[in-house]
Amino acid sequence: MSNPTTDSLQLLDAYWRAANYLSVGQMYLWDNPLLRRPLRHADLKPTIVGHWGSAPGQNFVYVHLNRIIRQYDLNMLYISGPGHAGQAMVGCTYLEGTYSEVYPDISQDEAGLKKLFRQFSFPGGIGSHVSPECPGSIHEGGELGYSLSHAFGAVFDNPDLIAACVIGDGEAETGALATAWHGNKFLSPATDGTVLPILHLNGYKIANPTVLARISPEELDDLLRGYGWTPHYVEGDDPEVLHRVMADTLDAITEDILNIRRRARDEGDTDRPRWPMIVLRTPKGWTGPKHAGGHAIEGTFRAHQVPITIGKNDDDALRQLEEWMQRYRPHELFDEQGKLRPELAALSPEGARRMGSNPHTNGGQLLEDLDLPDYADLAVDVPAPGRATAADTEVLAGYLREVIRRNADRRNFRIFGADETLSNRLAHVFEATQRQWTLPTAEHDQYLATDGRVVEMLSEHQCQGWLEGYLLTGRHGLFNSYEAFIHIVDSMVNQHAKWLKLTAELPWRKPLASLNYLLASHVWQQAHNGFTHQDPGFIDHLVNKKAAIVRVYLPPDANCLLSVWDHCQRSRHYINVVIAGKYPAQQWLDIEAAKAHCAAGIGCWDWAGCGTDVEPDVVLACCGDVPTLETLAAVSILRDYLPDLQVRVVNVVDLMKLQAPTQHPHGLEEAEFDTLFTRDRPVIFAFHGYPFLVHRLVYRRHNHGNFHVRGYKEEGAITTSFDMTVLNELDRYHLALSALQHLPELGREGERVREALEGKLATHRTYVEEHGVDMPEVRDWHWTS
Amino acid sequence: MSNPTTDSLQLLDAYWRAANYLSVGQMYLWDNPLLRRPLRHADLKPTIVGHWGSAPGQNFVYVHLNRIIRQYDLNMLYISGPGHAGQAMVGCTYLEGTYSEVYPDISQDEAGLKKLFRQFSFPGGIGSHVSPECPGSIHEGGELGYSLSHAFGAVFDNPDLIAACVIGDGEAETGALATAWHGNKFLSPATDGTVLPILHLNGYKIANPTVLARISPEELDDLLRGYGWTPHYVEGDDPEVLHRVMADTLDAITEDILNIRRRARDEGDTDRPRWPMIVLRTPKGWTGPKHAGGHAIEGTFRAHQVPITIGKNDDDALRQLEEWMQRYRPHELFDEQGKLRPELAALSPEGARRMGSNPHTNGGQLLEDLDLPDYADLAVDVPAPGRATAADTEVLAGYLREVIRRNADRRNFRIFGADETLSNRLAHVFEATQRQWTLPTAEHDQYLATDGRVVEMLSEHQCQGWLEGYLLTGRHGLFNSYEAFIHIVDSMVNQHAKWLKLTAELPWRKPLASLNYLLASHVWQQAHNGFTHQDPGFIDHLVNKKAAIVRVYLPPDANCLLSVWDHCQRSRHYINVVIAGKYPAQQWLDIEAAKAHCAAGIGCWDWAGCGTDVEPDVVLACCGDVPTLETLAAVSILRDYLPDLQVRVVNVVDLMKLQAPTQHPHGLEEAEFDTLFTRDRPVIFAFHGYPFLVHRLVYRRHNHGNFHVRGYKEEGAITTSFDMTVLNELDRYHLALSALQHLPELGREGERVREALEGKLATHRTYVEEHGVDMPEVRDWHWTS
Repeated sequence: MSNPTTDSLQLLDAYWRAANYLSVGQMYLWDNPLLRRPLRHADLKPTIVGHWGSAPGQNFVYVHLNRIIRQYDLNMLYISGPGHAGQAMVGCTYLEGTYSEVYPDISQDEAGLKKLFRQFSFPGGIGSHVSPECPGSIHEGGELGYSLSHAFGAVFDNPDLIAACVIGDGEAETGALATAWHGNKFLSPATDGTVLPILHLNGYKIANPTVLARISPEELDDLLRGYGWTPHYVEGDDPEVLHRVMADTLDAITEDILNIRRRARDEGDTDRPRWPMIVLRTPKGWTGPKHAGGHAIEGTFRAHQVPITIGKNDDDALRQLEEWMQRYRPHELFDEQGKLRPELAALSPEGARRMGSNPHTNGGQLLEDLDLPDYADLAVDVPAPGRATAADTEVLAGYLREVIRRNADRRNFRIFGADETLSNRLAHVFEATQRQWTLPTAEHDQYLATDGRVVEMLSEHQCQGWLEGYLLTGRHGLFNSYEAFIHIVDSMVNQHAKWLKLTAELPWRKPLASLNYLLASHVWQQAHNGFTHQDPGFIDHLVNKKAAIVRVYLPPDANCLLSVWDHCQRSRHYINVVIAGKYPAQQWLDIEAAKAHCAAGIGCWDWAGCGTDVEPDVVLACCGDVPTLETLAAVSILRDYLPDLQVRVVNVVDLMKLQAPTQHPHGLEEAEFDTLFTRDRPVIFAFHGYPFLVHRLVYRRHNHGNFHVRGYKEEGAITTSFDMTVLNELDRYHLALSALQHLPELGREGERVREALEGKLATHRTYVEEHGVDMPEVRDWHWTS
Repeated sequence: MSNPTTDSLQLLDAYWRAANYLSVGQMYLWDNPLLRRPLRHADLKPTIVGHWGSAPGQNFVYVHLNRIIRQYDLNMLYISGPGHAGQAMVGCTYLEGTYSEVYPDISQDEAGLKKLFRQFSFPGGIGSHVSPECPGSIHEGGELGYSLSHAFGAVFDNPDLIAACVIGDGEAETGALATAWHGNKFLSPATDGTVLPILHLNGYKIANPTVLARISPEELDDLLRGYGWTPHYVEGDDPEVLHRVMADTLDAITEDILNIRRRARDEGDTDRPRWPMIVLRTPKGWTGPKHAGGHAIEGTFRAHQVPITIGKNDDDALRQLEEWMQRYRPHELFDEQGKLRPELAALSPEGARRMGSNPHTNGGQLLEDLDLPDYADLAVDVPAPGRATAADTEVLAGYLREVIRRNADRRNFRIFGADETLSNRLAHVFEATQRQWTLPTAEHDQYLATDGRVVEMLSEHQCQGWLEGYLLTGRHGLFNSYEAFIHIVDSMVNQHAKWLKLTAELPWRKPLASLNYLLASHVWQQAHNGFTHQDPGFIDHLVNKKAAIVRVYLPPDANCLLSVWDHCQRSRHYINVVIAGKYPAQQWLDIEAAKAHCAAGIGCWDWAGCGTDVEPDVVLACCGDVPTLETLAAVSILRDYLPDLQVRVVNVVDLMKLQAPTQHPHGLEEAEFDTLFTRDRPVIFAFHGYPFLVHRLVYRRHNHGNFHVRGYKEEGAITTSFDMTVLNELDRYHLALSALQHLPELGREGERVREALEGKLATHRTYVEEHGVDMPEVRDWHWTS
């Protein structure tokens, strides 16, 4: 135990006052940052916005963590979970010097202070959350609930790292946070780092009390122990007392963490430890005004935003603000130049030990390329189109297994998922690794170990949050999910896309590995599950995000999946969505053809129809594995009935090729687009997702008026994969019928074929409802060139 | 205490065996449903799919609940949380007679049994979850996590009702479920019903063990007590022992529930009670095969789906299935006709007490119209366009207050939200009600009471789940949220939309009140919060759902908001999204004009430009409050510079008016559309959301090639509301510039105006970055006719 002296705690209190002073100054002050002259109305910002409530508590945590970092030379980063009070971390990283190193114009003097204050919550400045602009942050509190998942993601495979995570008691009511506590069942004390949750019981959200602050202390203690933690309580409102309690608590906790690590690493005790955590119960708006505007403020919900509202001529309010700020005694804290006094500055850790400068928080700096196998070695042998059968994701699993093997020592690649690794047919990865899990195992369990590259918990929020935390700290990974349920994290991916957009604009933030989604068990393959499991709309959601960030791939077969995935795994700072089939299916391209096709992202399949040297009567386009199969089957039907018809087949792997090059960097040049899709022929487009998305993407193209798109239209439930396509009119017969409909020049001959195909559909309907399986001509159909 | 006799428990066991038999039969049998002859391969379904794992446990719960319902004449419904094993509830409702009453062709005899078995997980049949087709269900387990929220929603304002909610231990890992336990802090023991959670520790998900089944019993007990419940444990694998334990436990729990109610209702003790709950720990696939195919099955993850795989000629596997089914002794359970024997049938509750027949589970049956005020009485006085100022949501709050007052006795209307009622400026509702909250209150709290129409918890998942449960049981309500964060429930609204689509196709399911969203604090009003709070994409997400279900409204002012909201509150079986402003803003329409405009859903604003009798040079269209303001400002700019220009203003309230009538029932007829938007003039469309959505909706319209849409393009963060429009090029200057760009006929005159407007934009940029507020000509701008 370090037993800090009373003197040292008084210094620490002064440092805290400096941080609190900066938190208030950022909200209010336009000028006169050190109150060197009496405060005037003109010294205030024209619009005073911001959130005070959780700032003093967060400052309290930050300065105490500084002490313990120095004491034990800890490698620690700070995550600010509460939604607001971003000025706290900004101020603390400014005091420690990091902020001025990153932004030299925000210097450590009076001029810098003035800029620091002005930029906060100001047009063109920084936001009221801990946004990407804040050094040391890997987490933004705008949408609540993900801090603790990010903390876990950050410490996987970083055995020395401690992620100190301040959790707001409002945030703690969200679903994502409520289950994030269980992350401790997946963390290895031997090979991973430590998460130190600090539950900040401020007492209030915006206008309501919080649940966790109002249940009895016994209930709260039960809850946290039930989640598997050992809570330590730091509660009260007297700073002098609380400094002592917090210091002693952090000493005890640090010893505990170091002991747990030692037992695991030196003595091989890999039993799941009970990690320590802190419950910090302090008044909302602590040290702020007790009353203002006729209301109690400190310790009530009214401390949430700006505590003192100051009207244009309200001198009383102005004086109250000044008194409040003077209570922190800025003249004792800052020297004549406006710099933090040296005896206080000495309290901060140095260099990379400062939490604002921890290299893990600018993960791109640490990012190492993966050692990737040559995917051609893992390809399916496809002697000719249709002459091989494979399950696409199963082939990819062979590649992922090699990625795991080659990077085993680097420990910088992980697969996250909600217990769908086996269901999505990635079993091959378990030839190289296990699922990480530190709870007891039972006799018939499979693939569980305290160290493994796969992490599975039945919470898409955790999978997403862990992966984000892992990527943000400079590693690689993927989220393997069912297609329909990835909507659970729609709002999380929004926030990550926003983070990527903003960090790409900050030169000091280095690019991260891309966030890769592998979505299988997709809408067309739900024989087991039906309607609830059918939703291809995640792509629609994503394409609203910045074009610089989003990539969407729908490989038609296994070799294309390999090529696409290899590309995604090498890419940086994107969100890549890859949708793939998991059931055995016909294969179309050998590996060389697949490479070329995926490099182009879109192409005419000459072997399946007429080439681009022939003017087609109709273009059959397809995007997605099942639409490709049905399109080729439609082509073979048309060929049988109408051997003279010129049908061109275009396959799309990279969806964003469809968009204009002015709208997306992958967009195909207009001339190339016209060459593929013609300027005037009908295009029957079989699409994996909602048809409108294709319309939307080709909106600006010359021939868009002739695009007739088939896709998912929310029909079908429990049925065969083929019948699903029939119910949504994406099947071979409907595609062929659609072509005929737009080829009136076929006249009576077209009519004859139409009748024959409608007969097929009727036969199918009767057959599948009587037998529960598709008729033999569908089941046994194979492409023959 | 009822102390059931051993004889009665043996009968109950027989009933359970019957239910288990049906659960296996539904997965496997095509014919020979009572095994009257030796099982043949031809008796099996062609494709055997389904999930066995949790079925026997759920059957166990259901038959025991039947007993306790009879014993105490309870009003109880059943929610099946686990993702699969839907056949359990189907079988149980069949045995009690409900199923045959709803579906007379599935009769209570051998022919009916055969149909019951065939339809399960079969094309055109029913799904493997408890889908809407199953009587008694208000919840489908396809996407996991919402059972407990639905249970709470169902019992609000139903003081006699008990929602028995079986929670899968896989499901329990999701975020939504993990925080749903806290619902007990909001339920009033006096005026609401009771949720009885039954946590089913099956031990496994698809392929992994579950967290809650593997933590120590002490940790689990701490966790559940920490959540505020009193857990009762029913654990083991010997049916004889467990029947006794379960019966005694349910007796004790029921007495406890009735005592809590009595204390609250007769003695006025409204302290938050500790409600009882059950932890049921039984083997996954209980009573199924111990081994099959060389693997242990019962009690392992391999019991999840079909336990015995039967190849075409695999007689051993066929015999094993037959032995398994015979172990339930079907000949003792069903009579010669195939009907459940009368001594067993007598164990089921009768009539509406049967859980499959509980009227609350077909809420449309119980739905009463709200008594709604005449919204004209609450309207804003608008003497002329622009001559009044009001905050739109504040005006709506007056209407909602009256709805609350008028329906206070009916107790059938609630507002749910994540602590945003005040922030979204709905404070007027607190003139009529309070926020419901049963934890202790403190001196400076506001608007909290143990009974109130507003329920707020910082979890969008709970708000959504509670509202769904409330609507599904025949009541009315709304979800009041920030626009950006409603994406948190994207996947939940998917599932509710699917539920509405399917139930609309079932004649015995009666229409529900619509699910109404009020989205304020929207993308254009984020001065406090910035980039993380900006996302108008929820509309995009919704319009992929069935057109029969989805309605989207963007009222331009307060009177239109009143009119639209009144319509939504009266509507049935829709999902209505209403996006509204919350800050004081210019008002355009008096109440009569607003009524007419909203009834049309779209219209030309003659007072703002040229009418439809004049051929315009350009159409300025707008949808949303801020886009309407900027459009009118653009019109006044164009009028100033180019007094001869004919500008038409079209305002869209009902977004789906834009879509073709073949695609959406609200779609405007082609001729009307052409009248409004012309067939050849440029249309500058200022849209609240992502611009592409408008392109997508007007894709089939004649003039779509001339639509130039401005909307949100992910630019801007902390800044003024007006500057947000500038950064996204939706502001008055950009709109006017866009009009000029498409009016080349203006020649040099247009060029001159363009230069002037670009000057304005440059001035704005400098001004806002220097002053932090908009330049006076923007702040002070007012429409003048």
